[in-house]
Amino acid sequence: MRYLMTFSYDGSKYKGYQKQPRMKTIQNEIEKVLTKLNSEKKVAIYASGRTDAGVHAYHQKAHFDLEKEWDLYRLEGSINSLLPKDIHVQKIERVADDFHARFDVKAKEYIYKINMGEYSPIEKDYVYQYNQPLRVIEMERALKYIEGTHNFKSFTKADEEKDDYVRTILSTQIIRDKKDLNRITIVIMGTGFMRYMVRNIVGVLIEVGEGKRKSKDILTILKEEDRTKSGKTAPACGLYLNDVFY
Amino acid sequence: MRYLMTFSYDGSKYKGYQKQPRMKTIQNEIEKVLTKLNSEKKVAIYASGRTDAGVHAYHQKAHFDLEKEWDLYRLEGSINSLLPKDIHVQKIERVADDFHARFDVKAKEYIYKINMGEYSPIEKDYVYQYNQPLRVIEMERALKYIEGTHNFKSFTKADEEKDDYVRTILSTQIIRDKKDLNRITIVIMGTGFMRYMVRNIVGVLIEVGEGKRKSKDILTILKEEDRTKSGKTAPACGLYLNDVFY
Repeated sequence: MRYLMTFSYDGSKYKGYQKQPRMKTIQNEIEKVLTKLNSEKKVAIYASGRTDAGVHAYHQKAHFDLEKEWDLYRLEGSINSLLPKDIHVQKIERVADDFHARFDVKAKEYIYKINMGEYSPIEKDYVYQYNQPLRVIEMERALKYIEGTHNFKSFTKADEEKDDYVRTILSTQIIRDKKDLNRITIVIMGTGFMRYMVRNIVGVLIEVGEGKRKSKDILTILKEEDRTKSGKTAPACGLYLNDVFY
Repeated sequence: MRYLMTFSYDGSKYKGYQKQPRMKTIQNEIEKVLTKLNSEKKVAIYASGRTDAGVHAYHQKAHFDLEKEWDLYRLEGSINSLLPKDIHVQKIERVADDFHARFDVKAKEYIYKINMGEYSPIEKDYVYQYNQPLRVIEMERALKYIEGTHNFKSFTKADEEKDDYVRTILSTQIIRDKKDLNRITIVIMGTGFMRYMVRNIVGVLIEVGEGKRKSKDILTILKEEDRTKSGKTAPACGLYLNDVFY
């Protein structure tokens, strides 16, 4: 019986999503719980993709197989009662036996939160604290240039080799909080993302916002296909996997 | 030289505001830093009042004396650089030598956050998770009854004896989040508060919101001046000291 689970987590206390021996990871915690509910027969979960240490998720998705057929509501309640408080299952559905939570992804949406105003200790792990105003309109202009299909080699993790660096960005947006104009949320939806890609895009956007680069520079960086040409990787704490689409 | 400091904190990792031997408290952390900056001569801070374990503050205020005259901007920077990341100084002002951050308080504002929608692990320590809809309009009606001057004995901590239980509530409000109607914020401003008073008021409001009590019942509870007549103490995590007025 294959199940698809939608879940959220606070990534601040974890060494990332992916399973690692003797490490506190999101996958470890969930597999422990599912294995327990599966009469101690090992259950593996397959997520839409991993998230790095400190990155959060509002609606991550993963599939897994269980021996018996569960009432979905009861299964959700059982998992949540055993999970730590910083991981939460929102929904469980039955899916076809050949459904795959990673290979079947059509699109993913990430959001990145920046606070340009006064530092708030309440949000220290949940937003990137940037202590000065940024030129948000110029950042939005730069962001629009990455929409479409491009080679994103300049925006990947420096030591990671890939066969294919081409990805398609479907839509982007910068939302300004109406109650607090110092808070912005960068939204990026695409068919696929490589490691550090969103945080490296945000890193360049911040340099644009600082006036160190022009919005059009992002096109040059894309064309160069060279990781040393982009900016700093923005911190993990501002990043959220917001949704996964099939 | 007397200074008045405005500061915010995430109370979730602390045993409350007030100094206690061998405990991690907000006051302990700040006094340690100020003593260091005062050439290791002991500095005591006097806050507008304490907050309990798990309670947060957006704008708490405290006064203290330092030997030398500091540039306020440098002092603020020095304190923040030495404080843990979950306490943050927002402002420091010079005040008269007879100013007292507790005795001179004219009013204080508390807010209490409730989420009636889906549980969010990101906010587990920052909002009271209530898993069903509440009758917010009826709650607001109940809240309005506590405005004015009343004996609040029914709403204090059960084992605490006071000479005087009369306090004045200046204004109240329940704000519904426009983006997410499942989120409400209860605002209570008054000239003074006793221990657990806000959380006990919220406890009764929740019973009103559940339909277990009518809004007018809050008047009966006030009149009875009996702690056993009010409801449960609402959890600490939803409570914030929002502001202090002099």
